[in-house]
Amino acid sequence: MDSTEENITASTVAMGSQCKDERLQYLMERLVTHLHDFARETQLTTQEWMKALIFLKDALSPPHPLPISNVLGLSTLVDSINNPKSANATESSVLGPFYTDNAHFTENGASIASQNRGEPCLVRCTLKDTSGNPIPDATIDVWEADETGRYDTQYEDAAGPDCRGVLKSNEDGEFWFKCVKPVSYPIPHDGPVGELLGVLGRHPFRPAHLHFKIEKEGFDQLITHLPPALYLRGDPYETSDAVLGVKSSLLVTPQKVQDPEIAARYGISVSDWDILWDFVLVGEAEGRQLKKDRSGKTGYTVSS
Amino acid sequence: MDSTEENITASTVAMGSQCKDERLQYLMERLVTHLHDFARETQLTTQEWMKALIFLKDALSPPHPLPISNVLGLSTLVDSINNPKSANATESSVLGPFYTDNAHFTENGASIASQNRGEPCLVRCTLKDTSGNPIPDATIDVWEADETGRYDTQYEDAAGPDCRGVLKSNEDGEFWFKCVKPVSYPIPHDGPVGELLGVLGRHPFRPAHLHFKIEKEGFDQLITHLPPALYLRGDPYETSDAVLGVKSSLLVTPQKVQDPEIAARYGISVSDWDILWDFVLVGEAEGRQLKKDRSGKTGYTVSS
Repeated sequence: MDSTEENITASTVAMGSQCKDERLQYLMERLVTHLHDFARETQLTTQEWMKALIFLKDALSPPHPLPISNVLGLSTLVDSINNPKSANATESSVLGPFYTDNAHFTENGASIASQNRGEPCLVRCTLKDTSGNPIPDATIDVWEADETGRYDTQYEDAAGPDCRGVLKSNEDGEFWFKCVKPVSYPIPHDGPVGELLGVLGRHPFRPAHLHFKIEKEGFDQLITHLPPALYLRGDPYETSDAVLGVKSSLLVTPQKVQDPEIAARYGISVSDWDILWDFVLVGEAEGRQLKKDRSGKTGYTVSS
Repeated sequence: MDSTEENITASTVAMGSQCKDERLQYLMERLVTHLHDFARETQLTTQEWMKALIFLKDALSPPHPLPISNVLGLSTLVDSINNPKSANATESSVLGPFYTDNAHFTENGASIASQNRGEPCLVRCTLKDTSGNPIPDATIDVWEADETGRYDTQYEDAAGPDCRGVLKSNEDGEFWFKCVKPVSYPIPHDGPVGELLGVLGRHPFRPAHLHFKIEKEGFDQLITHLPPALYLRGDPYETSDAVLGVKSSLLVTPQKVQDPEIAARYGISVSDWDILWDFVLVGEAEGRQLKKDRSGKTGYTVSS
């Protein structure tokens, strides 16, 4: 009847045998098994165990429990598991802790950034379904770090939302705006997660990117819950994103505007930056089917 | 270069390859591997992942990060891994969240409980080394829940320490005190850990027990850091302790005092309870050797 290094896993699992939720019971059985295997394999010391509990408590504490999951690659893995790929649809990415719901409505063509910041950049996008039909009247939340690599929420004296905006796609499924050319930046690294990266010899940088959260009735919610980001090709951290969020299908190459006609039409200089992107959204029915196909493979229904 | 369900584990581990602390690098590699294997095996959904992060944050939050580790059997496992057994020495047990360092010094024979509480119980102990020599002048912290199953710290209006005391062993290595006969009690189950036990169909009870924290220079610190508890044999929760802390070597059978001579000597009634126990402590040198033998088996030095 004694708990020993050998039998404690079975004892712990057995204690949950009256659980009425089959899925939860399975998750706990696998969790306890992996947790115990980890401790046994590594012959985890009492000090390491206590340090880990305190680290986890600190890392998960407010403002946000996501960064520790992000740097351990778990967020991206859960995204991969839950986001069945459609042939040509835009992929999702890791949701960082900087989305806010207070961005101002921004007319197409206006800037989401306050004046005289960083390198001006024009972003011109289309929004289509998987058959190529334009999606009008979608709501698009855009947000980015400023030219110093900080989001507005990281300033104690922030006057209001900046480098973020809410746009609407027009009847041709187009939306466009001006912003600051994104720069690579370190994720907050003064806390426990930053300390962990430090002792692991990992840098805290994310490659330059722009976040897009897209909502439109009749389209799959995945892209809303795990918003994609566009990553600037050629960034020094393109292949070593601290939160492992980069996907090659989301890499974009910024060009100089060059064409004076374009510059005049959008009220920007020929030497400014220009980013072009076509977003493709999966319809609700198609999304359901993709998840069904996926769960057929794994034996478990992935809920939306 | 894309992060996929298949390659993200290797990518995450590779990002820590510059770590200068070999042990930490190994721990992180095993942690990331188990964490990712768990998510892949269970095809963890986005909702489950988010719920788990928030649950963990809540469960680890103050007052104490230990209970979640306890109910998952991890604390006992870490104890088993780190506590090499000596042939006849007293084993350690799970440290609950109720130890405090404000207990009053209690003369041998006095009661650690305030008056007129529960069923009176005499506890008579000896303290010896592994060769059978008495250990005098050791400091022994004793604490227990009261007759309602609550520790003093669980009362908002607690007047001061109760059902806890600090004793000294005499020159024959003996110490003895009166207390409330321990009763089984539920661990705090109004928070996230209690909720988890509820959905798992697990009861939150610990079998009746008494905690002992023993300190004496020249003896192994393990018994100080992971204090033993004596568990009352025959308790309905003897084989289903919510925190998996019971060890058969720590089971004790309370008897009625019966003998009028004993009753008179200790100022207690013949119908009161009597618990007898011999604690055996491992010396520092022996403790070091046991750990060395153990680490020879595992290839890693378990620190004290």
